[in-house]
Amino acid sequence: MKPVKVGICGLGTVGSGSFNILQENAEEIARRVGRSIVVEQVGARRDNDACDTTGVNVTRDIFDVVNNPEIDIVIELIGGTSVAKELVLKAIENGKHVVTANKALIAECGNELFAKAQEKGVMVAFEAAVAGGIPIIKSLREGLSANRVQSLAGIINGTGNFILSEMSEKKRNFDDVLAEAQALGYAEADPTFDVEGIDAAHKLTILASIAFGIPLQFEKTYTEGISQITSEDVAFADDLGYAIKHLGIAKRTDAGIELRVHPTLISYKQLLANVNGVMNAVMVQGDAVGPTLSYGAGAGALPTGSSVIADVIDVARAISSSHESRVPYLGFHADTLSDDAILPVEEVECGFFLNLTIKDRAGVLANITQILSTNDISIESIIQREREGSDSVPLVVMTHDVKEQNMNLAIAAIEALPDVVGKIQRIRVEHLA
Amino acid sequence: MKPVKVGICGLGTVGSGSFNILQENAEEIARRVGRSIVVEQVGARRDNDACDTTGVNVTRDIFDVVNNPEIDIVIELIGGTSVAKELVLKAIENGKHVVTANKALIAECGNELFAKAQEKGVMVAFEAAVAGGIPIIKSLREGLSANRVQSLAGIINGTGNFILSEMSEKKRNFDDVLAEAQALGYAEADPTFDVEGIDAAHKLTILASIAFGIPLQFEKTYTEGISQITSEDVAFADDLGYAIKHLGIAKRTDAGIELRVHPTLISYKQLLANVNGVMNAVMVQGDAVGPTLSYGAGAGALPTGSSVIADVIDVARAISSSHESRVPYLGFHADTLSDDAILPVEEVECGFFLNLTIKDRAGVLANITQILSTNDISIESIIQREREGSDSVPLVVMTHDVKEQNMNLAIAAIEALPDVVGKIQRIRVEHLA
Repeated sequence: MKPVKVGICGLGTVGSGSFNILQENAEEIARRVGRSIVVEQVGARRDNDACDTTGVNVTRDIFDVVNNPEIDIVIELIGGTSVAKELVLKAIENGKHVVTANKALIAECGNELFAKAQEKGVMVAFEAAVAGGIPIIKSLREGLSANRVQSLAGIINGTGNFILSEMSEKKRNFDDVLAEAQALGYAEADPTFDVEGIDAAHKLTILASIAFGIPLQFEKTYTEGISQITSEDVAFADDLGYAIKHLGIAKRTDAGIELRVHPTLISYKQLLANVNGVMNAVMVQGDAVGPTLSYGAGAGALPTGSSVIADVIDVARAISSSHESRVPYLGFHADTLSDDAILPVEEVECGFFLNLTIKDRAGVLANITQILSTNDISIESIIQREREGSDSVPLVVMTHDVKEQNMNLAIAAIEALPDVVGKIQRIRVEHLA
Repeated sequence: MKPVKVGICGLGTVGSGSFNILQENAEEIARRVGRSIVVEQVGARRDNDACDTTGVNVTRDIFDVVNNPEIDIVIELIGGTSVAKELVLKAIENGKHVVTANKALIAECGNELFAKAQEKGVMVAFEAAVAGGIPIIKSLREGLSANRVQSLAGIINGTGNFILSEMSEKKRNFDDVLAEAQALGYAEADPTFDVEGIDAAHKLTILASIAFGIPLQFEKTYTEGISQITSEDVAFADDLGYAIKHLGIAKRTDAGIELRVHPTLISYKQLLANVNGVMNAVMVQGDAVGPTLSYGAGAGALPTGSSVIADVIDVARAISSSHESRVPYLGFHADTLSDDAILPVEEVECGFFLNLTIKDRAGVLANITQILSTNDISIESIIQREREGSDSVPLVVMTHDVKEQNMNLAIAAIEALPDVVGKIQRIRVEHLA
């Protein structure tokens, strides 16, 4: 089968991330789609050092891309609502499927774009427009489709969450942290879109439409920023057991639908209150599923590219297969499943927590640490406590990562020591970094 | 268009939940699919009081369902791997699409079932087989499809997580909590499948195949239960800053793929360590997206039914639409978007955190609380602190839920008091329950 051909318009952060994912994971992606996906053309005002476009047809006129008859899917990553809208409309008119990360475009012009796309029978996919790499659009439209959604609440702007997290963790002021965020590249020179909640309102508008089945109504979304939050507010909220987060909230009530973005106190008992830094998370409450949470990186070249390319794969699968085989049973086509070896557990490396009972005598600990050392096992922490009225005491050792077979040898040797009582309790430790 | 017709085999917990969701959310589901979905037949050994099957063709022979020529989609919810396998094979042979929640069947017989299904060109969907209501199969197969998955780690057995959470929070013993879990219906009379990790190993087998593109290899999954974990282990782990969780872990390494279920220490800094009770969560690490987490109910009639019916909707959408319109742009078909009113923010109810500065004089607090009371605002907590060398002190008031317009009136009145200095800082509070 000939490759699916995509054209990328815009080679900034997300454009370069998306381009690089298509190159890096080309083989894996072909196994998922049953067909290769190639970049036929890139339209960008300038090159981007972050990606190597050697051999790719690069044009300075993005409209070349939507007019290129070879191209199946146009990826719009230029942002904004003027040229981007014209570009997407032209792509639709030309019968191209469109993938975009443009939240402003979808929130403000989506109703019109979708009507045109439906007329022309093309797909317009926009997973990357909300919450970066988190597949929340797919979860709402498909994964949770059995539910009547009752409410959703999300941390959907990474810049704002970084600022509030720093204010809370380090007791710093808003202006101070904003300046740092700008230096780190998390915030724009003009931070209005992020800190005043406009970006979050675009995303919330999209989420609410999909959750409740209502038209996009950006202009009716209540929006309040975080620039007036003081470090004193954060400290008092903390005293009460609450974090201050910049949330987008959409809720069904008997009176109507609430659509609002504002700083919000939420209890630390909520997972959402523990989402810090530039990470995003969206909580969805459905009538069948109850509360759910999706967490991940809300921005950045590769995380946002992850969603852009997932959409490209979605479209490519649709135009390449029958309905029945659109998504292979195991996600990869059956004839491309790999025969990678499954490791026996003895070969697995992880940390270990050892809980043992020893006689409280001189030299026991030395013997134990000697055995661990002989088996190349290094210790991360030790707890030894007295036990009143007993000459046996508990000893807990936590080790760094080590192959399980080394640990088995060490445990056998330690259990054979005369001053070690009974069996050693051994529990593995994972760092999940 | 005529309705999509489903047949449900098995009317236990998940069967009744799935049946009820199809009834309760029929209108919303039809708006998503563009067509109604109706239960054509139910096959069950006995009725279930939890659902009203009046008017539905109920048979005691589940094979009637797979042989019913009217039925498009067979939902297999009888569990086990003997009759269930025979039933699913027969359904496939008869050209029916299959939706199942049966993790043992997929993990142990999936390779064979998928080969047959591919031959016959039918879909076999199994979102409900892993992590109940969390759409993790869809996330891995589609939402994160741009990624080379590096690892995943999940709390994928609610019973085990309930037991470990109780042991940790209330310093109780394993046997004691297990007995309670059995009384609450969270654990079976024979708890082996859950507490010895077999159920989790089934689920991990499925997740790993989808993550890495390898055949299902249940027999190679290392499995260790939690029945040997003591309350002392839990307490020592806690001292070190770690929770003990029963994790399923799949990881790519240079040497091969790790597939293992065992009790595991993870740092409290990880969101996963803070997933408690019967809730499930799966962390996926992709090369593009980085770390992600999906959280939700791992079991129960409605949460598992949520995934069963999402799969039914997936199949129904596929057999009802062209590729381009399989999933509507906003999840609901354009001509069914609703015109629900968006509430003005003044009509929204939530709690408020007020941070104000008052003169440290008698009667100020009485005046403020009087104004709040007059506006039907009740107080949840108050913090008032001395400020050295100043006659102005900060006062923080947190209120219960109230309509924003009442709060606006109260704030205006409080700001007009002579002993209140400057503007009141007002931040909303959400309980997200």
